[in-house]
Amino acid sequence: MIAVEEALAYVLKHFQPLESERVPLLDALDRVLTEEIVSDINIPPFNNSAMDGYAVIADDIARASRDHPVTLRVIGDVAAGYVAAHTVERGTAIRIMTGAPLPPGADTVVRFEETSEGLEARGARPTRERVDILKAISRGENVRAAGEDIRVGEIVFPKGTVVRPAEIGVLASLGKKDVAVHRRPRVAILATGDELVAIDAPIAPGKIRNSNEYSNAAAVLKTGGVPVQLGIARDNIADLTAKIRAGLDADVDLFLTSAGVSVGDYDIVKDVLNAEGEMQFWQVKMKPGKPLAFGILRGKKPVPLLGLPGNPVSAMISFEVFARPAILTMLGKTNFARPTVRAILQEELVNDSQRRNFIRVVVEPRGADWIARSTGEQGSGILTSVARANGLLIVPENIALVRAGETVDAQMMD
Amino acid sequence: MIAVEEALAYVLKHFQPLESERVPLLDALDRVLTEEIVSDINIPPFNNSAMDGYAVIADDIARASRDHPVTLRVIGDVAAGYVAAHTVERGTAIRIMTGAPLPPGADTVVRFEETSEGLEARGARPTRERVDILKAISRGENVRAAGEDIRVGEIVFPKGTVVRPAEIGVLASLGKKDVAVHRRPRVAILATGDELVAIDAPIAPGKIRNSNEYSNAAAVLKTGGVPVQLGIARDNIADLTAKIRAGLDADVDLFLTSAGVSVGDYDIVKDVLNAEGEMQFWQVKMKPGKPLAFGILRGKKPVPLLGLPGNPVSAMISFEVFARPAILTMLGKTNFARPTVRAILQEELVNDSQRRNFIRVVVEPRGADWIARSTGEQGSGILTSVARANGLLIVPENIALVRAGETVDAQMMD
Repeated sequence: MIAVEEALAYVLKHFQPLESERVPLLDALDRVLTEEIVSDINIPPFNNSAMDGYAVIADDIARASRDHPVTLRVIGDVAAGYVAAHTVERGTAIRIMTGAPLPPGADTVVRFEETSEGLEARGARPTRERVDILKAISRGENVRAAGEDIRVGEIVFPKGTVVRPAEIGVLASLGKKDVAVHRRPRVAILATGDELVAIDAPIAPGKIRNSNEYSNAAAVLKTGGVPVQLGIARDNIADLTAKIRAGLDADVDLFLTSAGVSVGDYDIVKDVLNAEGEMQFWQVKMKPGKPLAFGILRGKKPVPLLGLPGNPVSAMISFEVFARPAILTMLGKTNFARPTVRAILQEELVNDSQRRNFIRVVVEPRGADWIARSTGEQGSGILTSVARANGLLIVPENIALVRAGETVDAQMMD
Repeated sequence: MIAVEEALAYVLKHFQPLESERVPLLDALDRVLTEEIVSDINIPPFNNSAMDGYAVIADDIARASRDHPVTLRVIGDVAAGYVAAHTVERGTAIRIMTGAPLPPGADTVVRFEETSEGLEARGARPTRERVDILKAISRGENVRAAGEDIRVGEIVFPKGTVVRPAEIGVLASLGKKDVAVHRRPRVAILATGDELVAIDAPIAPGKIRNSNEYSNAAAVLKTGGVPVQLGIARDNIADLTAKIRAGLDADVDLFLTSAGVSVGDYDIVKDVLNAEGEMQFWQVKMKPGKPLAFGILRGKKPVPLLGLPGNPVSAMISFEVFARPAILTMLGKTNFARPTVRAILQEELVNDSQRRNFIRVVVEPRGADWIARSTGEQGSGILTSVARANGLLIVPENIALVRAGETVDAQMMD
């Protein structure tokens, strides 16, 4: 038997971020930049007003107060998107709207609320020749300085940055209509077994529906990959070989199979995989998910293959432990951690397997705490034990018992 | 000023889950079922073997041991996907593979490891006429009972279930090639302002690029909606009216605008919105994000409109607080909570605004703890303060100071 870490380290050695492609900005969402983003402008590009008010010279209003207002001559008006036609000189002001460039000469903005305009009815907007300033405010107040967010020449995002909505906003403000990101991995999904029928077929005696294809495809999508569904390969050399070659012809970056990799299994899957590539067949110290195959198929290019167990629960947990980090690595991501919640266990858990135990749990708030309880029967055939769960509780191989009331870390699965 | 809760409650009163549509199974990922899923089969559909071994009658092997093996006559072989041709009778066994239906007559499976076959070289698989059972095991061992996961007639998923990869797997095993889910909301996105230029345009004096359109569209995508990008409306009645009507013609379920809704703003946006629907213009007790408009536009059908502030940070936070729950509601979701991490604050935070303060923070592990620190300058124009953050720390309006070292709850943003 091989430890989870050892198996994972071996697997991940064979993956690296995929090549770069330029995509329209929105298509970069949740992907990873392959280019360093350097700004060719200041953001904001110019000093501008943070408020609606009057652009003034601070020295003019240094002694202004409600009792002793300072009266300034209004020489113009500037809205966002426009440039003032005049320069503010001592004794004058320009009416200014939020976002408008600070007129030359001005160094400060006084909000309407601190001028005679603010005393009048809301919405009153007469063209007026004079304004009374009712408060002394310090130089630079209510002015956003050019470059206070981003300076020209600054490295805004290094290579490797994950693009989220905020990064999309910044990239848009820098004029990046498209950006370079790692391309998405294409992941072949092949279920094997004479017992499988298509999901829209009736259940004949001895047959079950091919659910792994769909749960795997959904997990690939959630992880950011592109599933390439190859359907079902029968347990014979010709069909299995043909389906694997079809997957390789579909230009995939990772091959996922399910079933046929246990020690005791008929050797057809193993024989074909060994014929098409260089394979390892492991028993991993985890529960569920002990059987696992990993190797490299010989196609036009070498393609890594993960042979997941056939049991639906084992397949999903093995995907989580091995396929997910592999796909994230190809996307250029380096943080594989799921959000973790510290919760109080509500029941005793026995782990007599000497393997790492992945318990499906329901995590929910109770008062100020979080509590966790298992979803019941944890057999590897009980797929509803995953569907009922919102978290995974990982009991290490060297822990035989976790007591009710202990605090545990649950990985939240969305 | 209006409290966040009051504004949100008013907004959400105007949203409900959208109508249902049938979609191919994989398209249901991350959406919400509008139909109750009742199983018309047992899962597993038949008693089957959990191991590779021999199907036997437990009474036959009740005294078997390594020293005193019980020898059974092997009358057949059954692989997964097939049905045994014979009935197991006293003194006989059928060789069985994992997943194969338990043959009639048999009630128990003995693993290879506990038979004479397990003593031989791995992979040896002669057709043999007799097998020695080396261990007494209890009746029903290594048998998965029909219906142990799902029983025929059982309600597997109620209406309102969120479809994740595990649910996809279960639905596939039930033969659901397509399922009924709430359709995705279409969300119009319109930026307003004479200062805006398209993201691929050069920056002229007084102009900035239209970043809100892209951060909003990305946030809509992440929330599960379909963005309908309407570009930029100029600050004049004709253009703004035309763009709003174009959005209504695009059959949207929610309209997002940015800018033009502050108290002091030129009234063009407000005038047009008032002419096209019934609007409220609020000052919400939050920072950033004080100005907010909400109302109902008159189109072929009434369409709710959220008028977000123009500042990029304010727009993103207002989206998070108001637009995200509205979109999730239309998707049929009821849990709007983000994963929350309890972290130790690394700096003093002053909240002199008497508004709810949404501080952008970096949350990271330190030893067994999580720590949180702000991303620095929190001005509403500093979009990089959001891009540098992975969490939001919410300081309530009645808290003026949070001290360094206090434990705080940070909402994690992905």
